[in-house]
Amino acid sequence: MRIKEKMAVENGISHIHHIDVRFSEVDSLHIVWHGNYIKYMEDGREAFGRAFGISYLDVKAHGYTIPIVKIACEFKKPLKYGEKAIIKTTFIKTEAAKIIFYSHIYNEKDELVASGETIQIFLDEKNELCLQAPDFYNEWKKSIFETQV
Amino acid sequence: MRIKEKMAVENGISHIHHIDVRFSEVDSLHIVWHGNYIKYMEDGREAFGRAFGISYLDVKAHGYTIPIVKIACEFKKPLKYGEKAIIKTTFIKTEAAKIIFYSHIYNEKDELVASGETIQIFLDEKNELCLQAPDFYNEWKKSIFETQV
Amino acid sequence: MRIKEKMAVENGISHIHHIDVRFSEVDSLHIVWHGNYIKYMEDGREAFGRAFGISYLDVKAHGYTIPIVKIACEFKKPLKYGEKAIIKTTFIKTEAAKIIFYSHIYNEKDELVASGETIQIFLDEKNELCLQAPDFYNEWKKSIFETQV
Amino acid sequence: MRIKEKMAVENGISHIHHIDVRFSEVDSLHIVWHGNYIKYMEDGREAFGRAFGISYLDVKAHGYTIPIVKIACEFKKPLKYGEKAIIKTTFIKTEAAKIIFYSHIYNEKDELVASGETIQIFLDEKNELCLQAPDFYNEWKKSIFETQV
Repeated sequence: MRIKEKMAVENGISHIHHIDVRFSEVDSLHIVWHGNYIKYMEDGREAFGRAFGISYLDVKAHGYTIPIVKIACEFKKPLKYGEKAIIKTTFIKTEAAKIIFYSHIYNEKDELVASGETIQIFLDEKNELCLQAPDFYNEWKKSIFETQV
Repeated sequence: MRIKEKMAVENGISHIHHIDVRFSEVDSLHIVWHGNYIKYMEDGREAFGRAFGISYLDVKAHGYTIPIVKIACEFKKPLKYGEKAIIKTTFIKTEAAKIIFYSHIYNEKDELVASGETIQIFLDEKNELCLQAPDFYNEWKKSIFETQV
Repeated sequence: MRIKEKMAVENGISHIHHIDVRFSEVDSLHIVWHGNYIKYMEDGREAFGRAFGISYLDVKAHGYTIPIVKIACEFKKPLKYGEKAIIKTTFIKTEAAKIIFYSHIYNEKDELVASGETIQIFLDEKNELCLQAPDFYNEWKKSIFETQV
Repeated sequence: MRIKEKMAVENGISHIHHIDVRFSEVDSLHIVWHGNYIKYMEDGREAFGRAFGISYLDVKAHGYTIPIVKIACEFKKPLKYGEKAIIKTTFIKTEAAKIIFYSHIYNEKDELVASGETIQIFLDEKNELCLQAPDFYNEWKKSIFETQV
């Protein structure tokens, strides 16, 4: 049921993840409560991470955590119970010691439901901010973008 | 990725549903927070419902709602982030104006993680309790159990 | 707004905690989604814990964790957005290496909305089950029930 | 325990709301999961709304709903279990058919933990977008800002 595709885009690398809307995620207006899109965005990023080797658990294995420092989301259309959310997560290339993802959430009619952005930073094992991107991350980026040519 | 099987058991009909544990469902003890199993049980019931035509939306199409009146859950083993929950939902045959489901949640090693039970009642369009099971439900039960012979 | 009372009951010690129903806790039937009562019950237990010195953080300071092994809840009446949940949490005296709480949730008209029970066990610092109740817990029980005379 | 103050600021009207961090809101990094700040922001807006007569229920009584169309949040410092979130919600004056709130979340040391912004629009009883702000809202704004002089 869950379709996984890997797609290259011009300025990044994308991944598609499908989610069934849960009954408990729908509010009294009969639509997905806006805060639940933050979960969907994280699901999308983690599905990307599992596909490309940069999930929370992969990062943790290198001794780092990557907390969110900024999130933004615009809501275009409602999603209802019984519908699916199709999340396209795009990794945005940057030289900074950050991870930037764009999230585009579609319904099954391929209509844009919501779009968002997250920025994550790196904390080392002492929970201190990394001013420079860790080596493992630079190598990961290199390996990913080289295979895109 | 999501496996769906329909299985008949002696005293009921079962359905299997797979869930990826979400990062946001894990608590500071690094295990799925106990309240989230209630979501997993509902996901399992609704996956059963979609497979057999008795989901919330199916029931609503007949003019009824089926709120939970009782829930119980026993927790045997923890589930962690990165793991999958495999939920076996079993519909328990009863003559009462109730819907009874058993839920058994397993990890990928096929170890029982949690087991639970829910009881639902029928409310009609006026939000009043149905003392007798609605006709559509009796017919549904008949059709389901006949095909199990 | 939040009223806190300590009350002794015959077979236990009780504590009252008030909660405002959150918009995001109400489902498409316009009532609090049943799984959110599990949160309310935990809120009530932790408010009890903070009042009597047996909260998660108190227990952790002694080197233990107290995961839930069993939960049950019966739902009597719906709660709606704009309403308050008044949670009476009662610690039930037992000789076993367990913590047993009863939860009674009322609305502002003093009608019983839901009632539940939880059982918790003790895990030590190695995450192993305590077959006997830890000393700190026995002393805590003694101190609590002595002051109730 | 919950302190409520009404405060006027230069470019808006503010309200303070206090929240106890729930155990279930803390993730495996031992900090409040970022998506839960969206709940805190809504709690703050609704506490503002109840104090000033512009809550979801007030708006609904006039025949409108006010879904979120944009949300942004920056995370400065973590919040842990056992801590309180102090949410300052500021209504930002605008001529547009929108509701704009700024949210500033502090810990008990008065350190800024997170800051965010939401934009809401008006839908009428037919679920159609209001291109002009409804009369009741214009009157509400007038009454609120007049009393601020």
